[in-house]
Amino acid sequence: MKDDAPTPLDPPPRATVAGTPTIRDVARLANVSIGTASKALNAGGRLSAETREKVQQVAREIGYRPNDLAQSLHRAKSRTIGIISNDSFGRFTFPIVEALEERLAAEGIAVFMCNATDDPERERQHLDQLLGKRIDGLVVTARRADKRPSIGPLPDGLPVIYVFSQADDPHALSLLPDDEGGAVLAVSHLASLGRTRIAHLTGPEHFEAVRLRQSGYRSALAAAGLQEIEGFYRSGVWSEAWGREAVASLFAKPERPDAIFCGNDQIARGALDTLREMGISVPGDVAVVGFDNWDVMTLAARPPLSSIDMNLKALGREAGNSLINMIGGGKLGGVQRRPCSLVVRQSSGA
Amino acid sequence: MKDDAPTPLDPPPRATVAGTPTIRDVARLANVSIGTASKALNAGGRLSAETREKVQQVAREIGYRPNDLAQSLHRAKSRTIGIISNDSFGRFTFPIVEALEERLAAEGIAVFMCNATDDPERERQHLDQLLGKRIDGLVVTARRADKRPSIGPLPDGLPVIYVFSQADDPHALSLLPDDEGGAVLAVSHLASLGRTRIAHLTGPEHFEAVRLRQSGYRSALAAAGLQEIEGFYRSGVWSEAWGREAVASLFAKPERPDAIFCGNDQIARGALDTLREMGISVPGDVAVVGFDNWDVMTLAARPPLSSIDMNLKALGREAGNSLINMIGGGKLGGVQRRPCSLVVRQSSGA
Repeated sequence: MKDDAPTPLDPPPRATVAGTPTIRDVARLANVSIGTASKALNAGGRLSAETREKVQQVAREIGYRPNDLAQSLHRAKSRTIGIISNDSFGRFTFPIVEALEERLAAEGIAVFMCNATDDPERERQHLDQLLGKRIDGLVVTARRADKRPSIGPLPDGLPVIYVFSQADDPHALSLLPDDEGGAVLAVSHLASLGRTRIAHLTGPEHFEAVRLRQSGYRSALAAAGLQEIEGFYRSGVWSEAWGREAVASLFAKPERPDAIFCGNDQIARGALDTLREMGISVPGDVAVVGFDNWDVMTLAARPPLSSIDMNLKALGREAGNSLINMIGGGKLGGVQRRPCSLVVRQSSGA
Repeated sequence: MKDDAPTPLDPPPRATVAGTPTIRDVARLANVSIGTASKALNAGGRLSAETREKVQQVAREIGYRPNDLAQSLHRAKSRTIGIISNDSFGRFTFPIVEALEERLAAEGIAVFMCNATDDPERERQHLDQLLGKRIDGLVVTARRADKRPSIGPLPDGLPVIYVFSQADDPHALSLLPDDEGGAVLAVSHLASLGRTRIAHLTGPEHFEAVRLRQSGYRSALAAAGLQEIEGFYRSGVWSEAWGREAVASLFAKPERPDAIFCGNDQIARGALDTLREMGISVPGDVAVVGFDNWDVMTLAARPPLSSIDMNLKALGREAGNSLINMIGGGKLGGVQRRPCSLVVRQSSGA
């Protein structure tokens, strides 16, 4: 008999849901609002004994376990949060927002989406509007993860999280990918293939991500006992054209790299195209790793491109959990960097 | 003296705003809510005479002209609308949502963003949640413009617009790009360059857009007095790899195209790469036009790619205007297709 087998006294389940049951499932099956379900499962709130019992019975039937997060949500007043984004393109923001929205929707919290497109006046107007809606929390996101002025002024105690963006206030919670760690993953991987002349072609140095990835590149070289060869680090722009140009000039010299770590997938795509046209074999002569794991680039590249994934969906889910925690009174803060992962494809395959 | 010169009796303006003044500017400068400003500028609503006068004075000072749309907005109750999207990637949805949100924000209407990722159960949950928030209107958008079941059930009279998506209810308002017209633009342009052997490489035929673009290709050929050559129309998938494969097989035959209209920019990018590797000059021997005008593809292509732009931001702005109109009681409906435009770059340049 297994430990988790039901005892003979357990009633048979009468309602079931797919996946882990949420407060929303309880509310739906008990035919009450999410707010009522939350009250019924927590000590507080005025409810009839019948309603409380009905909700608790449904919760038992579907195996709903009110965790700390869900229990705290009776503090959410409007059950809305706002996202202010400065990412008019959306490639980085979208997976974050998608996962955040999915996480919050499961708790019955709706998301106002505002696009401020780097215009402080529009940001202020959006903020006014969101505060007028009495949002329970605020998420700030951006096209790039660099520091920005703190958003505000905000009412005391309003939870705010910066995701793929950081406030100049060190106490604010900022969730960011670990750019330096991602670069270490890429370069360690290339070194583990026996490559010893590893170049780094990257974007503009006024991006913090560029400086952090360069730092990871250097520390991983040192950890592998490798020298950084002069001229093998090149900063340019985030484009395929720059990748093509940089490879052409790098390979015009006698001492050629046997591996290239690129600061994004577009640079890597350009690098691969020029290597191909120069008749240099990838990964035979030169192994290549990109950054972003953007399928539009990695899968169309010849050969398909290994890349570092910033796990933006996981960052969005964590932002959702953190916001729920903070709405419930939890105190979170500081710049927190989350691990990237390496996706190996043919450009650095065996 | 110009007709619109102020008469000597006009007081000098005391408050100014950048751009066309909106109800939001009036509210801000009069230090009242947008709802109050709206009431003060319309006949209805209970307000003190002082407040009404203050708002009207600000409106005069900044030259605010309450148009039909803005006047109708006193009917908006919650000043929120919902967007339900099925576009988890966001490339097509994002410009639409961005422009829509910008248009509505100017009227003080906030946007709830819900991602249903093609899951009818999640869509239903999102809809329940939005209706619980008493939204004033609903926008449905998608990753592809094909017909879908109407969303619902909805409360009587709730304005709903499908953008880059269409309901199977022909009375619902669906705003779509004119795919057929876009194809006509592309093929007429190629014919105007003197090209007579124009091929069409495109995506899967279960997309309505593929069938409409094929139809535009054929009618533009006919209009130019050209024959469709057997084997010159090829349907595959939306990828660079398909563009490469299709060009390799198309150019392996003796009768070669002198122009290619591609169903999207990724197919066109693959086509350009293979033409380049075969030593075929673009646009000298073969002119190429893509579809989507996606800068990631068009600008990195060699040579830069001419393409058809679906003007998705304009579609988003129009959706915003239409929704405001409908919230105010306007009746709009039917499938409406808006023009695409041609952006000529070097791949079909002189």
